[in-house]
Amino acid sequence: MNKKKGLTNFTSRMIINVLGIPAILLLIHAGGPSFAVFIGLVAVLGQIEFYNLMQMKGFQPWSIGGLGAGIVWIMISYYSPMLLYPMMMLIFLLFLAIVLFKKIENTTVNTAVTFLGFLYLPFMLSILIMLRELPRQFNGYYPDGSKLVMLIFASIWICDSLAYVFGKWLGKTKIAPDISPGKTWAGCIAGLIGAIITVTIFYHLGWKPEFLNYRDMLVIGVIAGIFGQAGDFIESAFKRDVGVKDSSSLLMGHGGILDRFDSFLFAPGFVYLYLLFFM
Amino acid sequence: MNKKKGLTNFTSRMIINVLGIPAILLLIHAGGPSFAVFIGLVAVLGQIEFYNLMQMKGFQPWSIGGLGAGIVWIMISYYSPMLLYPMMMLIFLLFLAIVLFKKIENTTVNTAVTFLGFLYLPFMLSILIMLRELPRQFNGYYPDGSKLVMLIFASIWICDSLAYVFGKWLGKTKIAPDISPGKTWAGCIAGLIGAIITVTIFYHLGWKPEFLNYRDMLVIGVIAGIFGQAGDFIESAFKRDVGVKDSSSLLMGHGGILDRFDSFLFAPGFVYLYLLFFM
Repeated sequence: MNKKKGLTNFTSRMIINVLGIPAILLLIHAGGPSFAVFIGLVAVLGQIEFYNLMQMKGFQPWSIGGLGAGIVWIMISYYSPMLLYPMMMLIFLLFLAIVLFKKIENTTVNTAVTFLGFLYLPFMLSILIMLRELPRQFNGYYPDGSKLVMLIFASIWICDSLAYVFGKWLGKTKIAPDISPGKTWAGCIAGLIGAIITVTIFYHLGWKPEFLNYRDMLVIGVIAGIFGQAGDFIESAFKRDVGVKDSSSLLMGHGGILDRFDSFLFAPGFVYLYLLFFM
Repeated sequence: MNKKKGLTNFTSRMIINVLGIPAILLLIHAGGPSFAVFIGLVAVLGQIEFYNLMQMKGFQPWSIGGLGAGIVWIMISYYSPMLLYPMMMLIFLLFLAIVLFKKIENTTVNTAVTFLGFLYLPFMLSILIMLRELPRQFNGYYPDGSKLVMLIFASIWICDSLAYVFGKWLGKTKIAPDISPGKTWAGCIAGLIGAIITVTIFYHLGWKPEFLNYRDMLVIGVIAGIFGQAGDFIESAFKRDVGVKDSSSLLMGHGGILDRFDSFLFAPGFVYLYLLFFM
Protein backbone atom coordinates (compact mmCIF):
# COMPACT_ATOMS: atom_id res chain seq x y z
CA MET A 1 0.00 0.00 0.00
CA ASN A 2 1.52 3.42 -0.88
CA LYS A 3 1.45 6.43 1.38
CA LYS A 4 -1.19 8.30 -0.63
CA LYS A 5 -3.66 5.42 -0.58
CA GLY A 6 -3.03 5.12 3.17
CA LEU A 7 -3.95 8.76 3.71
CA THR A 8 -7.06 8.59 1.56
CA ASN A 9 -8.13 5.53 3.49
CA PHE A 10 -7.55 7.39 6.73
CA THR A 11 -9.67 10.34 5.59
CA SER A 12 -12.54 8.22 4.42
CA ARG A 13 -12.32 6.19 7.62
CA MET A 14 -12.65 9.40 9.61
CA ILE A 15 -15.67 10.54 7.57
CA ILE A 16 -17.40 7.22 8.05
CA ASN A 17 -16.65 7.22 11.77
CA VAL A 18 -17.84 10.79 12.26
CA LEU A 19 -21.10 10.06 10.44
CA GLY A 20 -21.48 6.39 11.28
CA ILE A 21 -20.84 6.19 15.00
CA PRO A 22 -23.42 8.76 16.14
CA ALA A 23 -25.93 7.35 13.65
CA ILE A 24 -25.52 3.84 15.03
CA LEU A 25 -25.73 5.08 18.64
CA LEU A 26 -28.97 6.87 17.77
CA LEU A 27 -30.39 3.72 16.19
CA ILE A 28 -29.45 1.68 19.27
CA HIS A 29 -31.08 4.30 21.48
CA ALA A 30 -34.27 4.27 19.43
CA GLY A 31 -34.46 0.48 19.39
CA GLY A 32 -37.70 -1.01 18.06
CA PRO A 33 -38.14 -1.31 14.31
CA SER A 34 -35.42 1.27 13.49
CA PHE A 35 -32.64 -0.77 15.06
CA ALA A 36 -34.06 -4.03 13.67
CA VAL A 37 -34.14 -2.57 10.14
CA PHE A 38 -30.56 -1.33 10.52
CA ILE A 39 -29.36 -4.77 11.61
CA GLY A 40 -31.40 -6.32 8.80
CA LEU A 41 -29.62 -4.09 6.28
CA VAL A 42 -26.20 -4.99 7.64
CA ALA A 43 -27.18 -8.66 7.46
CA VAL A 44 -28.46 -8.46 3.88
CA LEU A 45 -25.47 -6.47 2.60
CA GLY A 46 -23.05 -8.74 4.45
CA GLN A 47 -24.76 -11.83 3.09
CA ILE A 48 -24.55 -10.45 -0.45
CA GLU A 49 -20.82 -9.87 0.04
CA PHE A 50 -20.41 -13.36 1.44
CA TYR A 51 -22.19 -14.90 -1.56
CA ASN A 52 -20.11 -12.75 -3.92
CA LEU A 53 -16.97 -14.05 -2.27
CA MET A 54 -18.26 -17.60 -2.76
CA GLN A 55 -18.95 -16.90 -6.41
CA MET A 56 -15.38 -15.68 -6.80
CA LYS A 57 -14.35 -19.03 -5.40
CA GLY A 58 -16.40 -20.79 -8.09
CA PHE A 59 -19.54 -21.79 -6.16
CA GLN A 60 -23.14 -20.94 -7.03
CA PRO A 61 -24.89 -20.15 -3.76
CA TRP A 62 -28.65 -19.76 -4.07
CA SER A 63 -28.54 -16.10 -3.05
CA ILE A 64 -32.27 -15.34 -3.33
CA GLY A 65 -33.12 -18.23 -1.05
CA GLY A 66 -30.42 -17.39 1.44
CA LEU A 67 -31.36 -13.71 1.53
CA GLY A 68 -35.08 -14.48 1.80
CA ALA A 69 -34.41 -16.76 4.75
CA GLY A 70 -32.19 -14.06 6.26
CA ILE A 71 -34.87 -11.39 6.04
CA VAL A 72 -37.53 -13.69 7.52
CA TRP A 73 -35.12 -14.59 10.32
CA ILE A 74 -34.42 -10.94 11.18
CA MET A 75 -38.16 -10.19 11.26
CA ILE A 76 -38.90 -13.12 13.55
CA SER A 77 -36.04 -12.26 15.89
CA TYR A 78 -37.74 -8.88 16.31
CA TYR A 79 -41.39 -9.91 16.43
CA SER A 80 -41.35 -13.30 18.14
CA PRO A 81 -37.95 -14.62 19.20
CA MET A 82 -39.64 -17.55 20.94
CA LEU A 83 -40.32 -18.96 17.49
CA LEU A 84 -36.71 -18.82 16.35
CA TYR A 85 -35.85 -22.43 17.04
CA PRO A 86 -38.81 -23.94 15.13
CA MET A 87 -38.22 -21.38 12.38
CA MET A 88 -34.64 -22.59 11.99
CA MET A 89 -36.12 -26.02 11.41
CA LEU A 90 -38.68 -24.75 8.90
CA ILE A 91 -36.12 -22.68 7.00
CA PHE A 92 -33.75 -25.62 6.76
CA LEU A 93 -36.54 -27.98 5.64
CA LEU A 94 -37.84 -25.58 2.99
CA PHE A 95 -34.32 -24.92 1.86
CA LEU A 96 -33.61 -28.57 1.23
CA ALA A 97 -37.01 -29.02 -0.43
CA ILE A 98 -36.49 -26.14 -2.82
CA VAL A 99 -32.95 -27.19 -3.66
CA LEU A 100 -34.54 -30.25 -5.26
CA PHE A 101 -36.39 -28.19 -7.80
CA LYS A 102 -33.48 -25.93 -8.57
CA LYS A 103 -31.44 -28.74 -10.11
CA ILE A 104 -28.24 -26.79 -9.63
CA GLU A 105 -24.89 -28.35 -10.32
CA ASN A 106 -22.97 -29.54 -7.24
CA THR A 107 -26.17 -29.40 -5.19
CA THR A 108 -24.65 -30.34 -1.86
CA VAL A 109 -21.87 -27.86 -1.66
CA ASN A 110 -23.95 -25.00 -3.01
CA THR A 111 -26.66 -25.74 -0.45
CA ALA A 112 -23.99 -25.90 2.25
CA VAL A 113 -22.46 -22.58 1.23
CA THR A 114 -25.84 -20.85 0.96
CA PHE A 115 -26.80 -22.04 4.42
CA LEU A 116 -23.45 -21.01 5.87
CA GLY A 117 -24.11 -17.47 4.65
CA PHE A 118 -27.47 -17.53 6.41
CA LEU A 119 -25.94 -18.75 9.67
CA TYR A 120 -22.94 -16.45 9.51
CA LEU A 121 -24.91 -13.25 8.93
CA PRO A 122 -28.65 -13.06 9.75
CA PHE A 123 -28.50 -15.80 12.37
CA MET A 124 -25.56 -14.21 14.19
CA LEU A 125 -26.66 -10.59 13.78
CA SER A 126 -30.22 -11.26 14.97
CA ILE A 127 -28.72 -11.72 18.45
CA LEU A 128 -28.09 -7.96 18.59
CA ILE A 129 -31.82 -7.35 18.01
CA MET A 130 -32.72 -9.84 20.73
CA LEU A 131 -30.32 -8.17 23.17
CA ARG A 132 -31.74 -4.74 22.32
CA GLU A 133 -35.33 -5.93 22.81
CA LEU A 134 -34.63 -8.16 25.83
CA PRO A 135 -36.20 -5.87 28.46
CA ARG A 136 -39.34 -5.52 26.33
CA GLN A 137 -39.78 -9.30 26.22
CA PHE A 138 -39.48 -9.46 30.00
CA ASN A 139 -41.40 -6.24 30.71
CA GLY A 140 -38.27 -4.56 31.97
CA TYR A 141 -37.01 -1.01 31.57
CA TYR A 142 -36.68 -0.61 27.79
CA PRO A 143 -33.61 1.72 27.77
CA ASP A 144 -31.68 -1.08 29.56
CA GLY A 145 -31.48 -2.94 26.26
CA SER A 146 -30.10 0.20 24.65
CA LYS A 147 -27.40 0.51 27.33
CA LEU A 148 -26.48 -3.14 26.95
CA VAL A 149 -26.08 -2.92 23.16
CA MET A 150 -24.22 0.40 23.37
CA LEU A 151 -21.85 -1.21 25.88
CA ILE A 152 -21.13 -3.97 23.37
CA PHE A 153 -20.67 -1.59 20.44
CA ALA A 154 -18.47 0.81 22.40
CA SER A 155 -16.27 -1.99 23.79
CA ILE A 156 -15.78 -3.45 20.34
CA TRP A 157 -15.10 -0.12 18.68
CA ILE A 158 -12.55 0.93 21.33
CA CYS A 159 -11.01 -2.53 21.22
CA ASP A 160 -10.64 -2.41 17.43
CA SER A 161 -9.20 1.10 17.45
CA LEU A 162 -6.64 0.42 20.18
CA ALA A 163 -5.70 -2.89 18.56
CA TYR A 164 -5.09 -0.98 15.31
CA VAL A 165 -3.07 1.86 16.85
CA PHE A 166 -0.99 -0.21 19.27
CA GLY A 167 -0.50 -2.91 16.66
CA LYS A 168 1.06 -0.32 14.31
CA TRP A 169 3.09 1.28 17.10
CA LEU A 170 4.39 -1.61 19.22
CA GLY A 171 3.35 -4.67 17.27
CA LYS A 172 6.19 -7.05 16.48
CA THR A 173 5.02 -10.64 16.90
CA LYS A 174 2.32 -11.56 14.43
CA ILE A 175 -0.46 -13.82 15.76
CA ALA A 176 -1.20 -15.68 12.55
CA PRO A 177 0.48 -13.99 9.59
CA ASP A 178 -0.98 -16.47 7.10
CA ILE A 179 -4.57 -15.58 8.08
CA SER A 180 -4.47 -11.92 9.01
CA PRO A 181 -1.06 -10.31 8.36
CA GLY A 182 -1.87 -7.13 10.27
CA LYS A 183 -2.70 -8.71 13.64
CA THR A 184 -0.05 -8.62 16.36
CA TRP A 185 -0.09 -9.79 19.97
CA ALA A 186 0.60 -6.25 21.18
CA GLY A 187 -2.44 -4.94 19.29
CA CYS A 188 -4.58 -7.80 20.51
CA ILE A 189 -3.72 -7.24 24.18
CA ALA A 190 -4.15 -3.47 23.84
CA GLY A 191 -7.59 -4.12 22.33
CA LEU A 192 -8.62 -6.36 25.21
CA ILE A 193 -7.43 -3.81 27.77
CA GLY A 194 -9.31 -1.11 25.83
CA ALA A 195 -12.54 -3.10 26.04
CA ILE A 196 -12.09 -3.61 29.79
CA ILE A 197 -11.40 0.10 30.31
CA THR A 198 -14.53 0.93 28.28
CA VAL A 199 -16.87 -1.13 30.46
CA THR A 200 -15.18 0.26 33.58
CA ILE A 201 -15.80 3.83 32.40
CA PHE A 202 -19.42 2.97 31.58
CA TYR A 203 -19.78 1.52 35.08
CA HIS A 204 -18.32 4.52 36.87
CA LEU A 205 -20.43 6.94 34.84
CA GLY A 206 -23.48 4.93 35.95
CA TRP A 207 -24.29 4.24 32.31
CA LYS A 208 -25.19 0.62 32.85
CA PRO A 209 -28.21 -1.66 32.49
CA GLU A 210 -30.00 -2.15 35.84
CA PHE A 211 -29.65 -5.91 35.71
CA LEU A 212 -25.85 -5.97 35.42
CA ASN A 213 -23.27 -5.50 38.17
CA TYR A 214 -19.60 -4.65 37.61
CA ARG A 215 -18.56 -8.30 37.35
CA ASP A 216 -21.09 -8.89 34.55
CA MET A 217 -19.89 -5.80 32.72
CA LEU A 218 -16.30 -6.99 33.07
CA VAL A 219 -17.28 -10.32 31.52
CA ILE A 220 -18.93 -8.45 28.63
CA GLY A 221 -15.77 -6.39 28.19
CA VAL A 222 -13.62 -9.51 28.07
CA ILE A 223 -16.03 -11.16 25.60
CA ALA A 224 -15.96 -8.06 23.38
CA GLY A 225 -12.16 -7.89 23.64
CA ILE A 226 -11.51 -11.54 22.83
CA PHE A 227 -14.39 -12.69 20.65
CA GLY A 228 -14.68 -9.38 18.83
CA GLN A 229 -11.11 -9.88 17.62
CA ALA A 230 -11.77 -13.57 16.97
CA GLY A 231 -14.59 -12.44 14.68
CA ASP A 232 -12.01 -10.48 12.66
CA PHE A 233 -9.97 -13.64 12.28
CA ILE A 234 -12.93 -15.72 11.14
CA GLU A 235 -13.73 -13.22 8.43
CA SER A 236 -10.05 -13.02 7.44
CA ALA A 237 -10.01 -16.81 7.18
CA PHE A 238 -12.95 -16.68 4.77
CA LYS A 239 -11.34 -13.93 2.72
CA ARG A 240 -7.94 -15.58 2.67
CA ASP A 241 -9.69 -18.71 1.43
CA VAL A 242 -11.07 -16.74 -1.52
CA GLY A 243 -7.88 -14.75 -1.95
CA VAL A 244 -9.18 -11.19 -1.55
CA LYS A 245 -8.22 -8.44 0.88
CA ASP A 246 -11.51 -6.56 1.31
CA SER A 247 -14.98 -8.12 1.28
CA SER A 248 -16.09 -5.30 -1.07
CA SER A 249 -15.35 -1.63 -1.57
CA LEU A 250 -18.76 -0.44 -0.38
CA LEU A 251 -17.37 1.58 2.54
CA MET A 252 -14.19 2.82 0.82
CA GLY A 253 -11.34 2.78 3.37
CA HIS A 254 -13.34 0.45 5.58
CA GLY A 255 -13.59 -2.24 2.93
CA GLY A 256 -17.02 -3.85 2.90
CA ILE A 257 -19.80 -4.43 5.38
CA LEU A 258 -18.24 -7.73 6.39
CA ASP A 259 -14.92 -6.02 7.15
CA ARG A 260 -16.61 -3.43 9.27
CA PHE A 261 -19.02 -5.67 11.17
CA ASP A 262 -16.98 -8.86 11.48
CA SER A 263 -16.41 -8.28 15.20
CA PHE A 264 -20.16 -7.99 15.73
CA LEU A 265 -20.87 -11.38 14.20
CA PHE A 266 -19.25 -13.26 16.99
CA ALA A 267 -19.13 -11.43 20.32
CA PRO A 268 -22.91 -10.80 20.81
CA GLY A 269 -23.61 -14.56 20.76
CA PHE A 270 -21.30 -15.08 23.72
CA VAL A 271 -22.86 -12.14 25.58
CA TYR A 272 -26.29 -13.69 24.98
CA LEU A 273 -25.12 -17.08 26.23
CA TYR A 274 -23.52 -15.50 29.29
CA LEU A 275 -26.72 -13.63 30.17
CA LEU A 276 -28.77 -16.80 29.60
CA PHE A 277 -26.68 -19.14 31.68
CA PHE A 278 -25.39 -16.87 34.44
CA MET A 279 -28.15 -14.36 35.10
CA MET B 1 -28.91 -55.32 -11.75
CA ASN B 2 -29.10 -59.05 -12.49
CA LYS B 3 -31.82 -61.35 -11.18
CA LYS B 4 -29.58 -63.06 -8.63
CA LYS B 5 -28.46 -59.81 -7.06
CA GLY B 6 -32.08 -58.70 -6.96
CA LEU B 7 -33.07 -61.84 -5.06
CA THR B 8 -30.19 -61.53 -2.61
CA ASN B 9 -31.19 -57.96 -2.00
CA PHE B 10 -34.76 -59.05 -1.42
CA THR B 11 -33.68 -61.72 1.10
CA SER B 12 -31.43 -59.39 3.03
CA ARG B 13 -34.15 -56.75 2.99
CA MET B 14 -36.55 -59.25 4.51
CA ILE B 15 -34.07 -60.23 7.22
CA ILE B 16 -33.44 -56.63 8.14
CA ASN B 17 -37.17 -55.90 8.20
CA VAL B 18 -38.00 -58.96 10.32
CA LEU B 19 -35.32 -58.07 12.85
CA GLY B 20 -35.33 -54.31 12.47
CA ILE B 21 -38.99 -53.34 12.60
CA PRO B 22 -39.89 -55.03 15.91
CA ALA B 23 -36.63 -53.82 17.44
CA ILE B 24 -37.37 -50.23 16.48
CA LEU B 25 -40.96 -50.50 17.74
CA LEU B 26 -39.65 -51.80 21.07
CA LEU B 27 -37.20 -48.91 21.30
CA ILE B 28 -39.96 -46.41 20.56
CA HIS B 29 -42.13 -48.06 23.21
CA ALA B 30 -39.36 -47.92 25.80
CA GLY B 31 -38.58 -44.29 25.05
CA GLY B 32 -36.19 -42.59 27.46
CA PRO B 33 -32.46 -43.11 27.03
CA SER B 34 -32.88 -46.28 24.90
CA PHE B 35 -34.70 -44.48 22.11
CA ALA B 36 -32.41 -41.44 22.38
CA VAL B 37 -29.32 -43.66 22.07
CA PHE B 38 -30.84 -45.43 19.06
CA ILE B 39 -31.52 -42.12 17.32
CA GLY B 40 -28.05 -40.93 18.29
CA LEU B 41 -26.54 -43.99 16.62
CA VAL B 42 -28.54 -43.45 13.43
CA ALA B 43 -27.44 -39.80 13.44
CA VAL B 44 -23.75 -40.62 13.94
CA LEU B 45 -23.69 -43.39 11.32
CA GLY B 46 -25.63 -41.24 8.87
CA GLN B 47 -23.34 -38.30 9.46
CA ILE B 48 -20.28 -40.50 8.86
CA GLU B 49 -21.83 -41.63 5.56
CA PHE B 50 -22.59 -38.06 4.63
CA TYR B 51 -19.01 -36.97 5.32
CA ASN B 52 -17.70 -39.98 3.36
CA LEU B 53 -19.85 -38.93 0.42
CA MET B 54 -18.40 -35.43 0.68
CA GLN B 55 -14.88 -36.83 0.72
CA MET B 56 -15.67 -38.79 -2.44
CA LYS B 57 -16.62 -35.42 -3.93
CA GLY B 58 -13.20 -34.03 -2.97
CA PHE B 59 -14.04 -32.01 0.16
CA GLN B 60 -12.44 -32.36 3.59
CA PRO B 61 -15.22 -32.01 6.12
CA TRP B 62 -14.04 -31.74 9.72
CA SER B 63 -15.71 -35.00 10.72
CA ILE B 64 -14.62 -35.09 14.36
CA GLY B 65 -16.03 -31.62 14.97
CA GLY B 66 -19.27 -32.34 13.14
CA LEU B 67 -19.80 -35.64 14.94
CA GLY B 68 -18.91 -34.14 18.32
CA ALA B 69 -21.47 -31.38 17.76
CA GLY B 70 -23.98 -34.02 16.64
CA ILE B 71 -23.58 -36.11 19.79
CA VAL B 72 -23.86 -33.06 22.05
CA TRP B 73 -26.97 -31.99 20.14
CA ILE B 74 -28.67 -35.38 20.54
CA MET B 75 -27.91 -35.38 24.27
CA ILE B 76 -29.32 -31.90 24.76
CA SER B 77 -32.44 -32.70 22.75
CA TYR B 78 -33.03 -35.49 25.27
CA TYR B 79 -32.01 -33.79 28.52
CA SER B 80 -33.00 -30.16 28.02
CA PRO B 81 -34.63 -29.30 24.69
CA MET B 82 -35.29 -25.76 25.94
CA LEU B 83 -31.57 -25.12 25.54
CA LEU B 84 -31.44 -26.20 21.90
CA TYR B 85 -31.64 -22.75 20.38
CA PRO B 86 -28.79 -21.24 22.42
CA MET B 87 -26.84 -24.45 21.89
CA MET B 88 -27.17 -24.04 18.13
CA MET B 89 -25.59 -20.65 18.58
CA LEU B 90 -22.80 -21.97 20.78
CA ILE B 91 -22.04 -24.88 18.45
CA PHE B 92 -21.88 -22.57 15.45
CA LEU B 93 -19.65 -20.09 17.29
CA LEU B 94 -17.25 -22.76 18.54
CA PHE B 95 -17.22 -24.31 15.13
CA LEU B 96 -16.11 -21.12 13.44
CA ALA B 97 -13.58 -20.45 16.20
CA ILE B 98 -11.99 -23.88 15.91
CA VAL B 99 -11.92 -23.75 12.12
CA LEU B 100 -9.43 -20.93 12.53
CA PHE B 101 -6.94 -23.15 14.25
CA LYS B 102 -7.38 -26.04 11.87
CA LYS B 103 -5.91 -24.12 8.94
CA ILE B 104 -7.57 -26.47 6.48
CA GLU B 105 -7.49 -25.79 2.76
CA ASN B 106 -10.67 -24.26 1.33
CA THR B 107 -11.81 -23.29 4.81
CA THR B 108 -15.18 -21.89 3.86
CA VAL B 109 -16.58 -24.73 1.85
CA ASN B 110 -15.29 -27.38 4.24
CA THR B 111 -16.87 -25.55 7.15
CA ALA B 112 -20.09 -25.26 5.18
CA VAL B 113 -20.14 -28.96 4.30
CA THR B 114 -19.33 -30.03 7.87
CA PHE B 115 -22.12 -27.88 9.23
CA LEU B 116 -24.57 -29.14 6.59
CA GLY B 117 -23.91 -32.69 7.83
CA PHE B 118 -24.69 -31.55 11.36
CA LEU B 119 -27.95 -29.91 10.31
CA TYR B 120 -29.02 -32.69 7.98
CA LEU B 121 -28.56 -35.52 10.51
CA PRO B 122 -28.39 -34.81 14.27
CA PHE B 123 -30.39 -31.58 14.01
CA MET B 124 -33.18 -33.23 12.00
CA LEU B 125 -33.19 -36.57 13.82
CA SER B 126 -33.26 -34.97 17.27
CA ILE B 127 -36.85 -33.99 16.50
CA LEU B 128 -37.88 -37.65 16.85
CA ILE B 129 -36.48 -37.66 20.38
CA MET B 130 -38.34 -34.47 21.20
CA LEU B 131 -41.60 -35.92 19.85
CA ARG B 132 -41.07 -39.12 21.85
CA GLU B 133 -40.37 -37.18 25.06
CA LEU B 134 -42.98 -34.47 24.50
CA PRO B 135 -45.51 -35.73 27.09
CA ARG B 136 -42.74 -35.98 29.69
CA GLN B 137 -41.81 -32.34 29.18
CA PHE B 138 -45.43 -31.34 29.67
CA ASN B 139 -46.21 -33.85 32.43
CA GLY B 140 -48.51 -35.74 30.13
CA TYR B 141 -49.15 -39.44 29.69
CA TYR B 142 -45.73 -40.82 28.68
CA PRO B 143 -46.97 -43.61 26.29
CA ASP B 144 -48.62 -40.88 24.19
CA GLY B 145 -45.19 -39.93 22.86
CA SER B 146 -44.63 -43.56 21.95
CA LYS B 147 -47.93 -43.73 20.04
CA LEU B 148 -47.11 -40.52 18.22
CA VAL B 149 -43.67 -41.70 17.10
CA MET B 150 -44.97 -45.16 16.17
CA LEU B 151 -47.65 -43.48 14.08
CA ILE B 152 -44.94 -41.58 12.20
CA PHE B 153 -42.73 -44.65 11.72
CA ALA B 154 -45.62 -46.88 10.63
CA SER B 155 -46.98 -44.29 8.17
CA ILE B 156 -43.56 -43.81 6.62
CA TRP B 157 -42.81 -47.53 6.42
CA ILE B 158 -46.17 -48.36 4.82
CA CYS B 159 -45.80 -45.36 2.51
CA ASP B 160 -42.32 -46.46 1.39
CA SER B 161 -43.39 -50.08 0.89
CA LEU B 162 -46.51 -49.25 -1.13
CA ALA B 163 -44.60 -46.69 -3.16
CA TYR B 164 -42.04 -49.37 -3.97
CA VAL B 165 -44.55 -52.11 -4.85
CA PHE B 166 -46.99 -49.94 -6.84
CA GLY B 167 -44.13 -48.12 -8.47
CA LYS B 168 -42.77 -51.43 -9.82
CA TRP B 169 -46.25 -52.67 -10.80
CA LEU B 170 -48.05 -49.66 -12.26
CA GLY B 171 -45.38 -47.00 -12.44
CA LYS B 172 -44.91 -45.49 -15.88
CA THR B 173 -44.33 -41.76 -15.57
CA LYS B 174 -41.13 -40.93 -13.72
CA ILE B 175 -41.27 -37.95 -11.40
CA ALA B 176 -37.67 -36.79 -11.80
CA PRO B 177 -35.61 -39.43 -13.59
CA ASP B 178 -32.42 -37.41 -13.34
CA ILE B 179 -32.59 -37.31 -9.53
CA SER B 180 -34.17 -40.61 -8.55
CA PRO B 181 -34.74 -42.93 -11.51
CA GLY B 182 -36.94 -45.37 -9.56
CA LYS B 183 -39.60 -42.86 -8.44
CA THR B 184 -42.89 -42.80 -10.37
CA TRP B 185 -46.11 -40.85 -9.88
CA ALA B 186 -48.10 -44.06 -9.39
CA GLY B 187 -45.75 -45.18 -6.59
CA CYS B 188 -45.80 -41.76 -5.01
CA ILE B 189 -49.61 -41.57 -4.92
CA ALA B 190 -49.89 -45.17 -3.66
CA GLY B 191 -47.46 -44.27 -0.88
CA LEU B 192 -49.48 -41.23 0.15
CA ILE B 193 -52.70 -43.27 0.20
CA GLY B 194 -50.88 -45.95 2.22
CA ALA B 195 -49.87 -43.39 4.84
CA ILE B 196 -53.43 -42.09 5.08
CA ILE B 197 -54.81 -45.64 5.45
CA THR B 198 -52.23 -46.31 8.17
CA VAL B 199 -53.30 -43.39 10.34
CA THR B 200 -56.97 -44.29 9.75
CA ILE B 201 -56.36 -47.85 10.95
CA PHE B 202 -54.48 -46.55 14.00
CA TYR B 203 -57.42 -44.25 14.72
CA HIS B 204 -60.06 -46.97 14.43
CA LEU B 205 -58.05 -49.35 16.59
CA GLY B 206 -57.96 -46.60 19.23
CA TRP B 207 -54.16 -46.67 19.07
CA LYS B 208 -53.74 -42.92 19.16
CA PRO B 209 -52.19 -40.27 21.39
CA GLU B 210 -54.80 -38.66 23.69
CA PHE B 211 -54.08 -35.18 22.41
CA LEU B 212 -54.77 -35.91 18.73
CA ASN B 213 -58.13 -36.17 16.98
CA TYR B 214 -58.70 -37.79 13.59
CA ARG B 215 -58.04 -34.59 11.68
CA ASP B 216 -54.64 -34.22 13.35
CA MET B 217 -53.78 -37.82 12.56
CA LEU B 218 -54.82 -37.29 8.95
CA VAL B 219 -52.47 -34.30 8.75
CA ILE B 220 -49.66 -36.45 10.15
CA GLY B 221 -50.44 -39.13 7.55
CA VAL B 222 -50.30 -36.58 4.74
CA ILE B 223 -47.03 -35.16 6.10
CA ALA B 224 -45.53 -38.65 6.32
CA GLY B 225 -46.79 -39.46 2.82
CA ILE B 226 -45.52 -36.32 1.16
CA PHE B 227 -42.48 -35.20 3.15
CA GLY B 228 -41.29 -38.74 3.82
CA GLN B 229 -40.99 -39.22 0.07
CA ALA B 230 -39.52 -35.74 -0.34
CA GLY B 231 -36.83 -36.85 2.13
CA ASP B 232 -35.94 -39.67 -0.27
CA PHE B 233 -35.53 -37.14 -3.04
CA ILE B 234 -33.29 -34.88 -0.97
CA GLU B 235 -30.99 -37.77 -0.19
CA SER B 236 -31.03 -38.87 -3.84
CA ALA B 237 -30.11 -35.34 -4.84
CA PHE B 238 -27.07 -35.49 -2.55
CA LYS B 239 -26.05 -38.93 -3.85
CA ARG B 240 -26.57 -37.99 -7.47
CA ASP B 241 -24.36 -34.98 -6.84
CA VAL B 242 -21.57 -37.31 -5.67
CA GLY B 243 -22.37 -39.90 -8.30
CA VAL B 244 -23.10 -42.95 -6.13
CA LYS B 245 -26.19 -45.19 -5.85
CA ASP B 246 -26.07 -46.23 -2.19
CA SER B 247 -24.84 -44.10 0.70
CA SER B 248 -22.86 -47.14 1.95
CA SER B 249 -23.26 -50.91 2.02
CA LEU B 250 -23.72 -51.11 5.78
CA LEU B 251 -27.21 -52.59 5.58
CA MET B 252 -26.67 -54.79 2.52
CA GLY B 253 -29.79 -54.68 0.33
CA HIS B 254 -30.95 -51.55 2.11
CA GLY B 255 -27.88 -49.57 1.16
CA GLY B 256 -26.65 -47.40 4.01
CA ILE B 257 -28.18 -45.73 7.02
CA LEU B 258 -28.93 -42.62 4.97
CA ASP B 259 -30.83 -44.69 2.39
CA ARG B 260 -32.88 -46.34 5.09
CA PHE B 261 -33.62 -43.30 7.23
CA ASP B 262 -33.84 -40.59 4.58
CA SER B 263 -37.63 -40.33 4.98
CA PHE B 264 -37.21 -39.78 8.72
CA LEU B 265 -34.93 -36.80 8.22
CA PHE B 266 -37.65 -34.64 6.83
CA ALA B 267 -41.19 -35.61 7.88
CA PRO B 268 -40.78 -35.37 11.71
CA GLY B 269 -39.84 -31.69 11.46
CA PHE B 270 -43.14 -30.89 9.77
CA VAL B 271 -45.07 -32.96 12.34
CA TYR B 272 -43.31 -30.99 15.08
CA LEU B 273 -44.15 -27.67 13.42
CA TYR B 274 -47.78 -28.75 12.93
CA LEU B 275 -48.14 -29.69 16.61
CA LEU B 276 -46.47 -26.46 17.67
CA PHE B 277 -48.54 -24.11 15.54
CA PHE B 278 -51.92 -25.84 15.44
CA MET B 279 -52.30 -27.54 18.80
